[in-house]
Amino acid sequence: MTHPSAIERPAPVAIGASLAEVETPALLVDLDAFDRNLTAMARYAREGGIRLRPHGKTHKCVSVARLQVESGAIGLCCQKPAEAEAFAAGGIKDLLVTNEVVAPAKLRRLARLTAQARIGICVDNRDAVEALKSASAEASGPIDVYLELDVGAARCGVDNAADALRLLDAVSAGDRLRFAGIQAYQGGAQHLRQPAERRAAIDVALRLLAAVFEALKARGVDPGVITGGGTGTFPFETSSGAYDEIQPGSYVFMDRDYGDNLWPQDAPRFEQSLFLLTGVMSRRARWAVVDAGHKTHSIDSGMPVVAGRADLAYDNPSDEHGIIRAADLDALPRLGERLRLVPGHCDPTVNLWDWIIGIRGDRVEAVWPIEARGGSS
Amino acid sequence: MTHPSAIERPAPVAIGASLAEVETPALLVDLDAFDRNLTAMARYAREGGIRLRPHGKTHKCVSVARLQVESGAIGLCCQKPAEAEAFAAGGIKDLLVTNEVVAPAKLRRLARLTAQARIGICVDNRDAVEALKSASAEASGPIDVYLELDVGAARCGVDNAADALRLLDAVSAGDRLRFAGIQAYQGGAQHLRQPAERRAAIDVALRLLAAVFEALKARGVDPGVITGGGTGTFPFETSSGAYDEIQPGSYVFMDRDYGDNLWPQDAPRFEQSLFLLTGVMSRRARWAVVDAGHKTHSIDSGMPVVAGRADLAYDNPSDEHGIIRAADLDALPRLGERLRLVPGHCDPTVNLWDWIIGIRGDRVEAVWPIEARGGSS
Repeated sequence: MTHPSAIERPAPVAIGASLAEVETPALLVDLDAFDRNLTAMARYAREGGIRLRPHGKTHKCVSVARLQVESGAIGLCCQKPAEAEAFAAGGIKDLLVTNEVVAPAKLRRLARLTAQARIGICVDNRDAVEALKSASAEASGPIDVYLELDVGAARCGVDNAADALRLLDAVSAGDRLRFAGIQAYQGGAQHLRQPAERRAAIDVALRLLAAVFEALKARGVDPGVITGGGTGTFPFETSSGAYDEIQPGSYVFMDRDYGDNLWPQDAPRFEQSLFLLTGVMSRRARWAVVDAGHKTHSIDSGMPVVAGRADLAYDNPSDEHGIIRAADLDALPRLGERLRLVPGHCDPTVNLWDWIIGIRGDRVEAVWPIEARGGSS
Repeated sequence: MTHPSAIERPAPVAIGASLAEVETPALLVDLDAFDRNLTAMARYAREGGIRLRPHGKTHKCVSVARLQVESGAIGLCCQKPAEAEAFAAGGIKDLLVTNEVVAPAKLRRLARLTAQARIGICVDNRDAVEALKSASAEASGPIDVYLELDVGAARCGVDNAADALRLLDAVSAGDRLRFAGIQAYQGGAQHLRQPAERRAAIDVALRLLAAVFEALKARGVDPGVITGGGTGTFPFETSSGAYDEIQPGSYVFMDRDYGDNLWPQDAPRFEQSLFLLTGVMSRRARWAVVDAGHKTHSIDSGMPVVAGRADLAYDNPSDEHGIIRAADLDALPRLGERLRLVPGHCDPTVNLWDWIIGIRGDRVEAVWPIEARGGSS
């Protein structure tokens, strides 16, 4: 049996179709809300005098990346070489991989990508820097290297100034590597519910940053671009004065988890633009079953909610099903009725889909391929 | 900006490559274990005198479906019209959608598929039967209709004999519909840890089945094919004598959740054949970070474990990362080291990938497209 060298994923619906023609389940973006989110973040960055480098891991979609750049972003963040390749192929000229990459084959792919775009990468280990140096022989120009600090998330990064300096020494010894700045993203702070908690977490991040600035200054080294900040914390990184660039991703779509955050008065608000369109496929006396289960949305950050229907609750998902309950049984949706779910977590939900269906009112206005969807090496 | 009408997903590696050439993260199947699982279930069904209709929702992959049919399965189960279309296009001639489908456009797609394969579908609602009747005008031959019973999972189905009879009346009135049997799958029983608990759950299912048999007999109606049973319970459905057909899916791959089940002495054992290959991308003093997060495996049934390394634990996944901890810090894997994870739940994990990489020893022997991957309408 022979196998193909590629799979084709056809678009699920044609541009111009009505929303009623979209089969469930489907991933929708309300373009009015999406446009307002795009504009609000671009304006915030412009008025706040901070560089905006939105995170492409949220959408993995060239169409969204282009709209972000057209509205003022200086480039995109991504997490994986495969995402960088997709964005570079889509014409994005400035890409920062906000993540460690250590496999030689992947580093060579990133090095070759410098022919198409400015490429930055994070390091937190001297062995990884050595591997990057070897790979950089295939680069068309210098590779921007960012020292990643663990500013509290307890994942990747170095957590003290001495280790940061040792990394800097390793980077400086590579003539195709260019020390470009510091990655200081606090992933663990984004969903602390109270603004004061998030601000306190960023204050902790700032203490490590200050220690590293001090150490670099003692060496006479410019710290370069300080980058970090997600949808939950970017006002605090911005107001700190220590950051040059913010990396929010979820703001274009939002999700139930961000919806549960409380927000400071003076920060821009973002609307839910991402929805999972689902239909009732079975209607029992005390519950309805919808066709949205684990294969359509991710529950790592909790259950979705039903948009505009606070009287309904979604629970007990299985692979292809979810259960809708109502306190008032008369309010349970009927067989065939369609609902919009607000996913618990946008990034891994979008990653389940090949296409984003952009709607304006009741009309399909865009059908965007999610080019970098997948586990992504 | 114009958009393409299809996305291409290229194969991640070539057949004949070495395992070392497979970039992480990647979805692997150990073909030796897979082959033994395939053979063990086929032999069980043959010797037990029960029809085997494996569930394609686990793998969504034509290559696996063909191997199942070649080893004795009478056809495949699936959950979605899109899966049925993929399997029919791949040459599978007998397909049962073990699920409710109510949208007219989807029912018409299923009706048209009767030109390529025998198609069965489940119903639990008279309105859905009426919709199916309308759609059946586009069928090339009769559509097999199965009454779905809710035998304890509290999801779809009817839960009493009177409702089953009313459904039967509706089906019988459609001249292109053929009452074919009863779907009686207890999804909630599969992961009860003790065999006695699972047997007890199937005993409950058998009581409703008996009541329905009685009601049909009083009408002089043959109950047709009784189908159900998953990887956790199929020995109990088989030994009951009430079932004609079993529908196990996970047995080809297995997962951590099934690995946590206890198994009766006389049932066939299945081996873990599905693995997530991951690499250490950051190495801290007290943990290692691997490149397998929510976008590579599903945690709906709990965390993965590290194959062959009971001394390591995977926890705290984020979108692109997971943390590996060790009681003995000297045992923590090194930067760049590769591990195999056993996913918590195979079905939604496979659904995250476009390709299954089949390895035998250290060599890539197969690269199988997952044709029906996705949310699937």
